[in-house]
Amino acid sequence: MNNFNFYSPTYFVFGKGKENETGKYVKRFGGTRVLIHYGSGSVMKSGLLDRVKKSLTESDIWFTELGGVVPNPRSGLVYEGIEICKHENIDFVLAVGGGSVIDSAKAIALGALYDGDFWDFYTGKQYVKKALPVGTILTLTAAGSEGSSGSVITHENGMLKRATGGDAMRPAFSILNPELTCSLPPYQTACGATDMMAHVMERYFTNTRNVEITDRLCEGILLTVINEAPKALTNPDDYEARANLMWAGMVAHNDTCGVGRDSDWSSHQMEHELSGLYDVAHGAGLAVMFPAWMKYVMHHDLNRFAQFAVRVWGCEMDFQNPEKTAIQGIQRYEQFVSSLGMPIRFSQLGAKAVDIPTLVKSMGLGKNTLGSFVKLTSEDVTKIYQLAV
Amino acid sequence: MNNFNFYSPTYFVFGKGKENETGKYVKRFGGTRVLIHYGSGSVMKSGLLDRVKKSLTESDIWFTELGGVVPNPRSGLVYEGIEICKHENIDFVLAVGGGSVIDSAKAIALGALYDGDFWDFYTGKQYVKKALPVGTILTLTAAGSEGSSGSVITHENGMLKRATGGDAMRPAFSILNPELTCSLPPYQTACGATDMMAHVMERYFTNTRNVEITDRLCEGILLTVINEAPKALTNPDDYEARANLMWAGMVAHNDTCGVGRDSDWSSHQMEHELSGLYDVAHGAGLAVMFPAWMKYVMHHDLNRFAQFAVRVWGCEMDFQNPEKTAIQGIQRYEQFVSSLGMPIRFSQLGAKAVDIPTLVKSMGLGKNTLGSFVKLTSEDVTKIYQLAV
Repeated sequence: MNNFNFYSPTYFVFGKGKENETGKYVKRFGGTRVLIHYGSGSVMKSGLLDRVKKSLTESDIWFTELGGVVPNPRSGLVYEGIEICKHENIDFVLAVGGGSVIDSAKAIALGALYDGDFWDFYTGKQYVKKALPVGTILTLTAAGSEGSSGSVITHENGMLKRATGGDAMRPAFSILNPELTCSLPPYQTACGATDMMAHVMERYFTNTRNVEITDRLCEGILLTVINEAPKALTNPDDYEARANLMWAGMVAHNDTCGVGRDSDWSSHQMEHELSGLYDVAHGAGLAVMFPAWMKYVMHHDLNRFAQFAVRVWGCEMDFQNPEKTAIQGIQRYEQFVSSLGMPIRFSQLGAKAVDIPTLVKSMGLGKNTLGSFVKLTSEDVTKIYQLAV
Repeated sequence: MNNFNFYSPTYFVFGKGKENETGKYVKRFGGTRVLIHYGSGSVMKSGLLDRVKKSLTESDIWFTELGGVVPNPRSGLVYEGIEICKHENIDFVLAVGGGSVIDSAKAIALGALYDGDFWDFYTGKQYVKKALPVGTILTLTAAGSEGSSGSVITHENGMLKRATGGDAMRPAFSILNPELTCSLPPYQTACGATDMMAHVMERYFTNTRNVEITDRLCEGILLTVINEAPKALTNPDDYEARANLMWAGMVAHNDTCGVGRDSDWSSHQMEHELSGLYDVAHGAGLAVMFPAWMKYVMHHDLNRFAQFAVRVWGCEMDFQNPEKTAIQGIQRYEQFVSSLGMPIRFSQLGAKAVDIPTLVKSMGLGKNTLGSFVKLTSEDVTKIYQLAV
């Protein structure tokens, strides 16, 4: 096991109707002038935004608002939000939405306390040290941004999708009401489940040895998603399934299950290029990229893939031929995400083989490599994209 | 799933040699005048205390010290520590030791900011609202106090063992260096493993339905202890086994795996009476009480016990007769803790059947009940103690 630091100070408030307590928590974490950040009109139509505003008003908290976050959130709105923060002396950013809204809110909170271009943090020119406190009211179980230290933004200049992170970006509080996710369309529910699983699997496939505790926690989260996601698709109003998925999504990405081990993230990076170019849903892109990556790297550690097959997918271990078991596990994963309605090939996603050189070039690997389980060159990345066609 | 709040803001620093960074973390969390709290001379003999003091000195932090904490930590030393805090204007309590030392430090931190008797918090007369910040340098994997909000103290007036808890008592930071646990004698290692498992099982046996995510996390922790504890007994210097146990012990009790579900704690309470009267190790007492409790309450939810048997102990489900599977799971648990060198009966512990009325009386249930999985009357508790004879 590697040495590590772990710090997850977010105050989680979980359950029905908890968004009505927003004002109390904003106050507890020092907010007096709030920027409410959200996406499309759905939080207006559902009445959620009104309930949140009512709660702030009842706590005598001043607020202004900025809507319009889109999936794969863009830099333009972040610049706009930072401007509002500086102009209005905002001291708290409140995200009402899913991962895109929260990531955008984190970027705004970061940029509000920085004199330069917020994009510096996403290109590695600057390290995250401080940010305004962020609160979240989660409406979509997927990204885990409600408990994570990370944020992913797409810059409109070149459609580059890049990530940054740091302890200062962990939300101060996150309100998780599973009821708010019951209105999600099946496709978004499935994308969320796939994203959660990917967060776990990026950590699971590691070269770090002797990580039984985090292996077991990872497997527990995957087993939960496998059990609960189909229920949420069959019956969208299944509160209990939504609740299990909601906590699983948080634990999948706040790093409880990822500490002390190298993690990979190359499937995420390859997906980022895909959704940067085609603007496809992140979960859908992951459903396409993960099996391709697995097939390409499997032989690097067959036993780990066999463990995945046996413990997560209930496959029988083929002791004569562990490769068979490993392949079976990958197939079971493909079958599962496919059964959720996810694409598993480029064509289903609307991606084109002819664009592969563009995708690889946009990643800008040069002579560097991607990932840690297997260090991938640009040539490897090209082959993995080809496997996904 | 129940509604819940979850707040675990402790900064965890995990790995080899990390105690040498103590000063940095005390400073980060505002400590300028520190009370170092510890147990026996072992932290002196090992040189650990010197390394900690050196680190504080290097960070220009003033400190004084109070040693002498014993297992099942006593009120007398807590009163002494509170007196020192008030007299010396201590603003940070640093625990160097295992769960007993940390629990004692938490009690001191609590009492230092309270005008009355600190015991008021342990009898339910007062609720925990504030405490001095506590840091921990963990030397024994067991109690989970390094990440938990709780503390258990034995009052010397009547040898009453009582617990309290609250967010303000979560440690500000905890340094977890698995190397420090390599010198633990086998008996203490085994007690620690048993304690961790008990923390999980108190949460696992619940009446709350649809808690797949926390069920799976609980099972993951139990599987880890089952895999790693024998390695640490066979080879005490197995750093990797110690590391896995150390993180498992934290996750077992910071409530990541226990949120959203009723937990029981009656085995813990029955054990508290045992160790209050006989001063036995907490883990050893739990190894005796848990199987007795299981056998007594099993029929309340046979399927949950069958799930425990199948998922944790790898038993085959007897679909014709789930009771058989449930019993097999309890037997496997007994065999396992016994294989670690734990007692599983009163006699092995030095406890006496003739004292059962004293144990029950000391619990002071009156017309109240104990636990939540099955609400136990004094008569039930008597029968469970008898099953443990």
